[in-house]
Amino acid sequence: MATYIERLNSAILAKRAPVVVGLDPRKEQLPPGLMDSAKSGHSYYSDPTATAYERFCFQIIDIVAPLVPAVKPQAAFFEELGPSGSLVLASVIRRAREAGLIVICDAKRGDIGSTAEAYARGYLAGSDRNAAPWSADSLTVNPYLGPDTLQPFVDVAVKREAGLYVLVRTSNPGAAGFQDLIADGQTHYRHVAAAVEQLAQETRGEQTYGAVGAVVGATYPQELAELRAAMPHTHFLIPGYGSQGGTAQDIAAAFDADGLGAIVNSSRGIIFAYNNAKYKDQFAPEQWESAVEAATRDMIADLAEHTPAGALGG
Amino acid sequence: MATYIERLNSAILAKRAPVVVGLDPRKEQLPPGLMDSAKSGHSYYSDPTATAYERFCFQIIDIVAPLVPAVKPQAAFFEELGPSGSLVLASVIRRAREAGLIVICDAKRGDIGSTAEAYARGYLAGSDRNAAPWSADSLTVNPYLGPDTLQPFVDVAVKREAGLYVLVRTSNPGAAGFQDLIADGQTHYRHVAAAVEQLAQETRGEQTYGAVGAVVGATYPQELAELRAAMPHTHFLIPGYGSQGGTAQDIAAAFDADGLGAIVNSSRGIIFAYNNAKYKDQFAPEQWESAVEAATRDMIADLAEHTPAGALGG
Repeated sequence: MATYIERLNSAILAKRAPVVVGLDPRKEQLPPGLMDSAKSGHSYYSDPTATAYERFCFQIIDIVAPLVPAVKPQAAFFEELGPSGSLVLASVIRRAREAGLIVICDAKRGDIGSTAEAYARGYLAGSDRNAAPWSADSLTVNPYLGPDTLQPFVDVAVKREAGLYVLVRTSNPGAAGFQDLIADGQTHYRHVAAAVEQLAQETRGEQTYGAVGAVVGATYPQELAELRAAMPHTHFLIPGYGSQGGTAQDIAAAFDADGLGAIVNSSRGIIFAYNNAKYKDQFAPEQWESAVEAATRDMIADLAEHTPAGALGG
Repeated sequence: MATYIERLNSAILAKRAPVVVGLDPRKEQLPPGLMDSAKSGHSYYSDPTATAYERFCFQIIDIVAPLVPAVKPQAAFFEELGPSGSLVLASVIRRAREAGLIVICDAKRGDIGSTAEAYARGYLAGSDRNAAPWSADSLTVNPYLGPDTLQPFVDVAVKREAGLYVLVRTSNPGAAGFQDLIADGQTHYRHVAAAVEQLAQETRGEQTYGAVGAVVGATYPQELAELRAAMPHTHFLIPGYGSQGGTAQDIAAAFDADGLGAIVNSSRGIIFAYNNAKYKDQFAPEQWESAVEAATRDMIADLAEHTPAGALGG
């Protein structure tokens, strides 16, 4: 058994890529044929969209498992389908772990006391795959309710050798609205960052990074650099690369000298690459799997060239 | 067809009670016999705990449906069981709506753009019960990611005549940690409150209260009174009464002169009343259903006596 950060770092070093592929199935953007075959063929789920999501995610897992250390299923797109989607989410997480991938469940949960604990117990399996029904290695968490509401998540995470990523500075256009309000001379997100860094310190043992990480968007490079400096023991999950506009240069400051300390997510830019201008001419829609592989390799090369993640290459 | 607030207010007036019963099933606190009978008898779900949760919630729905306008299932306790729990959540919501109850799904979701929209589409059925797989009338939402991330929830809510409750000032002991930081001379939660009141204004049409409400805890009476004054068009969902320490007097300021404008939640205090000191002597564990009914009637009477909700009595 090993802690979340130990498992994650060894996977990053094995693949030489600090990359997580976001599994965001969207019905309207599924590659051609997937919905039709789900409707006509044998289906485990009553809803053919659920069947199509499962096949789509399974195929992506098979393509990216040799290339990247982790995947990040976005709970919302599964939940949109109702209970069948919940079943698919569990099945996709299981398949990803069987393929040797670290699974970051992006569910942005948050609640108080024993309610927060119930969420943690449902999603955080950590080093024992059977410890939670949605057996993720780590979970994204929302801090709005207060620092006390993070503790139940932390307790379960530490016990199960799982990880957390607390929202600190997000990648959306309106992130500044509440996160950048200045209190006591510091942005709101810096106050949250201080609490998160404290929890990272408390859970790191003799490692550099603790069980508690932070979500910091690629779309705000200045804030990213500032937070890296302020949070030396906090692992970063970085959304916003690619489709949302963040570049490898924007993210460079998130890594330590060894190329570790952060993992960068791309969702649409990889899984729907067949539909992106960059790959459209190169791959026909039926070759969507090749487009996924090309986009994954391109992202890894881009990070290796323009960030300290190149240090992983060796 | 009617908007969320129209449906809610007519239910509150019909029952003469601004009360919502929280459905928070917890395995360790289930009344005696429920788990055993779920294990031995015929079970629709593979997990007997899921069967026990469904029976428990169904029985509570049957008891409280004649007395209160609404129930509030807490998603975390269902999700803790995995996909079987997701099925039970859908089934409990359906049963509650069939019993004529308004359903506030307490899932505290929050994400960006089309991801937020996916959550909204999954949970907000509004006036058309078939519009969403978890067919709630309203949903609790977390604002941390920014004001722009509330809009997709609002768009779906308005379209489906559903409602939202955005976390503003929560009831937990550490709520002040981030929510009370002072920026530009105002607490953080007042900045969130201003954005929420704006959305309430934009969605109220000719009604007093809009589709967008706020979660404001009963445990901080001063903040509650302050927010009522600052948010004249925002409906309040008030947790923290009873088990968490909030009293009817603490909540009095949340109501308008007609006794409307707020709905007060009690979860453990009602559903596990058989286990509370106040009812333990009066009811044996096997009489837990009578304890639920007594606790519900007591709460309604308490609010009627000590708050403007008494105006509903007529």
